[in-house]
Amino acid sequence: MLSGARGGGSFAVPVNLIVLEPNDFVSEGHVRLVDRRLVHARKHLRVALGDRLRVGLLDEGEGPAAANIGHGEVLRCDREALELRVELGHAPPPPSAVTLAIALPRPPTLDKVLQQGTALGIKRFLLFHSARVEKSYWGASALEPASVRRQLLLGLEQSVDTVLPRVELHRRFRPFVEDRLTALRERGPVLVADPEAPRSCPRALAGPLCLVLGPEGGFVPFERERFAALGDELVGLGPRILRVETAAVALLARLAPE
Amino acid sequence: MLSGARGGGSFAVPVNLIVLEPNDFVSEGHVRLVDRRLVHARKHLRVALGDRLRVGLLDEGEGPAAANIGHGEVLRCDREALELRVELGHAPPPPSAVTLAIALPRPPTLDKVLQQGTALGIKRFLLFHSARVEKSYWGASALEPASVRRQLLLGLEQSVDTVLPRVELHRRFRPFVEDRLTALRERGPVLVADPEAPRSCPRALAGPLCLVLGPEGGFVPFERERFAALGDELVGLGPRILRVETAAVALLARLAPE
Repeated sequence: MLSGARGGGSFAVPVNLIVLEPNDFVSEGHVRLVDRRLVHARKHLRVALGDRLRVGLLDEGEGPAAANIGHGEVLRCDREALELRVELGHAPPPPSAVTLAIALPRPPTLDKVLQQGTALGIKRFLLFHSARVEKSYWGASALEPASVRRQLLLGLEQSVDTVLPRVELHRRFRPFVEDRLTALRERGPVLVADPEAPRSCPRALAGPLCLVLGPEGGFVPFERERFAALGDELVGLGPRILRVETAAVALLARLAPE
Repeated sequence: MLSGARGGGSFAVPVNLIVLEPNDFVSEGHVRLVDRRLVHARKHLRVALGDRLRVGLLDEGEGPAAANIGHGEVLRCDREALELRVELGHAPPPPSAVTLAIALPRPPTLDKVLQQGTALGIKRFLLFHSARVEKSYWGASALEPASVRRQLLLGLEQSVDTVLPRVELHRRFRPFVEDRLTALRERGPVLVADPEAPRSCPRALAGPLCLVLGPEGGFVPFERERFAALGDELVGLGPRILRVETAAVALLARLAPE
């Protein structure tokens, strides 16, 4: 079994799942990896011939979830390639029912939110503009598709999941709140985290819901009023001011129904 | 009021509280700052004469909590010094009742756990050795007192708190579990997070308790058996494998009684 126990000496985080993509397959049930997954297997996992590694086939989320997690037996592992004989058959863990909407944060925070949110099972992120989001963040390299995808994959590798989340960008506040969120309001509650809200965030909610987090400086009054006018519930986080990535994890843990 | 709203262009996280120490005072109610707090005030907060900044006097936790949070009016802010006229009178937010015990993690994770745990109100961290902790971590610079203190201060600055947490180091597993934790067992439950535990972590526990998190690779069977033999409850985290820092925030949010 793959674990972090053999990750000798480095401070890199060991992956718990090697995520495979369709073009890794050289024939049925046989993959050949030559990229960072090879480096990771050699350097951090120190795999040997015959080892079994936990693997999963990436699911782009187009169709129903498949039983695409299993193991790969090491057929070859040298400087050039890691080759595995793959058998899949287990389902990924159930997804979170929460859609996570976040006012676009500073780039390092965005990376953390995408990665940790994915690890917690979020399958849809909505990144939106609000008055206290710096416009420059919309041009950050952290928002480029390859960067976003990398954070999502890190979250899947961490949490042994294969279903890639979707990430939507909404650069205008009002259409986001009035149109996009209304489609979600028809499916379940929209909870807006607001440090000034008197009521605590509810616990253990089953079923679809959307959790909205504001920017570091908070929503401006106009924005807070728009949410309230549209029937959304403003929920507090207690007396402490938390970083966006900490607040996101804390609220998702509180809302999780299991 | 101090907020993140003026943090123009940089990706640095703005502080929500400027933490003062006794030797910052040049006379009663008058402080002079010349270090990173000056840089922060000029670069990120862009303070002007007459601005009011949220300040708090650091409490080393020796005595009862004092009403040591208030504001500082800017008397001077230039390249050389930030000078404030200080008035204190508000109490810090209530502390968490949880003692957080963590198998010593890799250094970057340690930084995050100390900072985020402090932001969530933890006042006592116990760092302990276990079989899957790499011995080299005990020599890491992240464990040096100045480094630990810096992370704790960052957590206080973030969450507008002034009471400095204590951090204990326990380099031997058995004395830690059999002696140190027994002192805590007399005050409340010891919950040991274990990915293999069948029962979920309880929610909303009031009163003193100790939450124990293992290393990335998990506890070895002997360790798990020691906890169980001493009457501790092994609690699960759901079907997903989380990073230590994510699991810590998620479990603390789940346990929080408010």
